[in-house]
Amino acid sequence: MKLATIRLDDHRTAAVRADGDHLVELGQPDVGAVLAAPGGLAAAARANGPRHPRAGADLAPVVPHPGKVVCVGLNYRNHIQEMGRDLPQHPTLFAKFADTLIGAGDDIRRPVETEQFDWEAELALVIGKEVRRADEDEAVAAIAGFTVLNDITCRDWQFRTREWLQGKNWDSSTPVGPFLVTADETGARPALDIRCEVDGRLMQSDNTGDLLFDPVELVRYVSTTLRLRPGDIIATGTPGGVGHARKPAVFLQGGETVVTEIQGLGRLENRVVREDV
Amino acid sequence: MKLATIRLDDHRTAAVRADGDHLVELGQPDVGAVLAAPGGLAAAARANGPRHPRAGADLAPVVPHPGKVVCVGLNYRNHIQEMGRDLPQHPTLFAKFADTLIGAGDDIRRPVETEQFDWEAELALVIGKEVRRADEDEAVAAIAGFTVLNDITCRDWQFRTREWLQGKNWDSSTPVGPFLVTADETGARPALDIRCEVDGRLMQSDNTGDLLFDPVELVRYVSTTLRLRPGDIIATGTPGGVGHARKPAVFLQGGETVVTEIQGLGRLENRVVREDV
Repeated sequence: MKLATIRLDDHRTAAVRADGDHLVELGQPDVGAVLAAPGGLAAAARANGPRHPRAGADLAPVVPHPGKVVCVGLNYRNHIQEMGRDLPQHPTLFAKFADTLIGAGDDIRRPVETEQFDWEAELALVIGKEVRRADEDEAVAAIAGFTVLNDITCRDWQFRTREWLQGKNWDSSTPVGPFLVTADETGARPALDIRCEVDGRLMQSDNTGDLLFDPVELVRYVSTTLRLRPGDIIATGTPGGVGHARKPAVFLQGGETVVTEIQGLGRLENRVVREDV
Repeated sequence: MKLATIRLDDHRTAAVRADGDHLVELGQPDVGAVLAAPGGLAAAARANGPRHPRAGADLAPVVPHPGKVVCVGLNYRNHIQEMGRDLPQHPTLFAKFADTLIGAGDDIRRPVETEQFDWEAELALVIGKEVRRADEDEAVAAIAGFTVLNDITCRDWQFRTREWLQGKNWDSSTPVGPFLVTADETGARPALDIRCEVDGRLMQSDNTGDLLFDPVELVRYVSTTLRLRPGDIIATGTPGGVGHARKPAVFLQGGETVVTEIQGLGRLENRVVREDV
């Protein structure tokens, strides 16, 4: 099952289920509300509300207001190597606030304050059940499904201090979507091709089966410290090929189109718009 | 004006204003809702709802569900020096999720997974107005007021990886309160004595006037990247005297009482309870 959150004409949003060429409203304002409702996914499978053509739908972030977005910093072997680091013993975690999130077709706002605006294609998992100190089975059961995210980063701000947060939390910078694809279709450890293109040039290409810490391990690890709740997102890290690590380095200037795609999950296509403050 | 969020008997919470020995209900569920309502602080000054004795009130986190808790890592000169670092050019920022927050008298849960459970008394500011790219005047105007926070930290987890998040985000670990003291009483750059005691032993003692990046500068800096919204919290960093930097190091084992106090703002008094998982 593929779920999304779409924007309606009257400033409301609606959770929808993909049904062929159409999107069917589920009677909830967004996918976060679907996941938070008891039996929400089962109800979503049965719901039969108003229908919209899938083409041209205005997609909001798949979960617009997650309580937490936990990001993993170094998780593909080749990206760790291009950043010049050793393979870690533990996942490196940082946070993203919900105000950073945008929809699958929205503009990425390039701040005037950065000279090093970079891409990071990522597989993101979405939590479907409250869980703390999950064992492996509980971690598998807590994963509602997967989506695509691009952790757009201001590298100059990321490396200003020893904490990455300020490079990763610019307003309206992080596309997430288009769909939550439920784990019954993907399994809990999907091995899917992931790629990022900038103006048609392939920049990142890997497979999510190469993750050092896989989705189940990440839910287990993160839930040791934090109670994960429905709608929470874990972005599992990015493969090699980011602009910062290229020789010479390549950064987004504004005007480019960034395509972020994971096989079977869907495609983000976002224009980079230079802010004029 | 001093505002708090109290727990009522029926699992509801209520925003209240301190009025002598009493707390007066404001008709909002918590201080976050007061700040988010247009004219919320002016209405809070006039409200005259049910009254509760101040003694024995069950205090919730002063803002129970902030959209963001942005923390500053190194901001008192003496703490920077005891951690063996140079004075930074920019604030070091990391995040805390709302699930970590507890009330001024609640138990701090000491996880079984840590051997290095430490304290960090902090002045915290609370945002009262939405603001992005604030100049100095806008930053001053965006500060609703101040409260007390203890950024209880698992040092062993903080230093597992190069990002601090996982040491700073344990469930029910971070007391915040008791009151939001509005900025008309404190000014925007309060110089107040701050202290932390563990079982009556003075561990931290400094003055918030010693902050390297003061509250106004922090709002200006953080709002460059992020849109700050009413109820968002910025924890401004901790002074010297944390357990990790002592010789020999001292950590919380469970059973201690941690008192965190800022002159004129109030006092947190929290028992450390060892989790038995």
